[in-house]
Amino acid sequence: MAGDHPDAQLFPNATGAAAAMVKDHQKEESLKLYSGWFCPFVQRVLLVLLEKNIPFQYIEVNPYHKQKSLLDLNPRGLVPTLQYDNKPLYESTVVCEFLEEAYPSATPKLVPSDPYTKARMKIWADFVTSRIIPAFHRFLQYQSKSTSDPGLEKVRLDFIEQIKQFTQEMDPEGPYFLGKDPSLIDLIIAPWAVRFWVFDHFKGGIKLPKEEAWVQRFEKWLKAVETRDSVVNSTSEREHYVPIYQRYADDVAMSELAKATREGKGVP
Amino acid sequence: MAGDHPDAQLFPNATGAAAAMVKDHQKEESLKLYSGWFCPFVQRVLLVLLEKNIPFQYIEVNPYHKQKSLLDLNPRGLVPTLQYDNKPLYESTVVCEFLEEAYPSATPKLVPSDPYTKARMKIWADFVTSRIIPAFHRFLQYQSKSTSDPGLEKVRLDFIEQIKQFTQEMDPEGPYFLGKDPSLIDLIIAPWAVRFWVFDHFKGGIKLPKEEAWVQRFEKWLKAVETRDSVVNSTSEREHYVPIYQRYADDVAMSELAKATREGKGVP
Repeated sequence: MAGDHPDAQLFPNATGAAAAMVKDHQKEESLKLYSGWFCPFVQRVLLVLLEKNIPFQYIEVNPYHKQKSLLDLNPRGLVPTLQYDNKPLYESTVVCEFLEEAYPSATPKLVPSDPYTKARMKIWADFVTSRIIPAFHRFLQYQSKSTSDPGLEKVRLDFIEQIKQFTQEMDPEGPYFLGKDPSLIDLIIAPWAVRFWVFDHFKGGIKLPKEEAWVQRFEKWLKAVETRDSVVNSTSEREHYVPIYQRYADDVAMSELAKATREGKGVP
Repeated sequence: MAGDHPDAQLFPNATGAAAAMVKDHQKEESLKLYSGWFCPFVQRVLLVLLEKNIPFQYIEVNPYHKQKSLLDLNPRGLVPTLQYDNKPLYESTVVCEFLEEAYPSATPKLVPSDPYTKARMKIWADFVTSRIIPAFHRFLQYQSKSTSDPGLEKVRLDFIEQIKQFTQEMDPEGPYFLGKDPSLIDLIIAPWAVRFWVFDHFKGGIKLPKEEAWVQRFEKWLKAVETRDSVVNSTSEREHYVPIYQRYADDVAMSELAKATREGKGVP
């Protein structure tokens, strides 16, 4: 059955810097992360675990042969699923906020202590999930006949507009969203930001309007984020992402997110 | 212009118990809630404010003549918008969590202190917004020729299935979701639960399968929630909701949520 599935040729495990990180997290730990090496929602949780240096066991899930231990925890078998105290947690942003609260002595703190700043951060984290990710996928999955297709131009410009709105909410100096230190909002969007190369590879580039001031702020942010150890060490070799994103670019990917995008819906 | 808008005949203000509550919250306060008396997302925030007895000023927004003070805070002019320390906050679930943290001495506590229970509550709060509300609107806005239309049956049963899944996560005794005391999750869904009469009025009834055990648990929960003072005092007279929900039932409502439902999308 799995062989019939258009996503079934998935490379089976992390490579490059991420392979080393995975190897360092094989030891039995009570905190377990059921993962997919390629999944940006998993990477959100990994970033929090790595930034805060929380001990955890990394468990790779083969999406076509899911472990019984995972299905016992989460019958839908989705990744990321966190096993904490033998109980399941899922939904990446909920898991990220949970780790901040369940390990209060782990540093750095990623959630601002001021309630207003925290609420504002949540509004923009929500913007990432409800606006930026759908726009990323509408652009990536758009089927154009040529690079001058006006429909392609529309989804490209809409994607840029979402990045612009997000960037305009950043602290003016930065380099991070809230200022000189990273916070959860940076980690919530980072997995997509470090995949922007897919547009160069498949869609003729994002073509950010370099002359606009906000683009400089965005690029300052991007440089700070993509060079963080947590990001580098949770990223595999690009060549292994290519066949996965090829299926998105051909709009034949069968993930829940790919299907939702095809139906004009948001993140499921 | 407003007269051309199909939602423009909206009754202008709260009535019944809600009118008395509004009258009690006219005094100038630094914390201001820009509201729509009919809006269930506003009611979520009102429930938290009333439960915790936090002083606030209620400001009714005419959606066709929005105050400059609101547009200065939130250019999209959406309700609920909270004005706190002269700064805006919006998105109802973010605002609800903010109030819990910004007024730490206000009781009762509505968010569990245990991080795991809190995370689990957030997962199910998310379920309300991403599953129950869209299913509510697909059922309400479904255009059927007769009450035996199989398409109507499908959206009705799907709505029941979402309520069932939610109910099965409740504490077995209750009466509230997490046990004997109410928490944020009860208030997040309450505004829709107290509007279930719209299905009797417009769609031939939800027809919950009374013989199933979970329905008894649900009805125990509903009775506890709908009789709370905060719920009673934030609810207007039914007759004034009828013309609003008539437009949803006729699928001609022009709210962002109505349009998103028509396009097969979730809560915008």
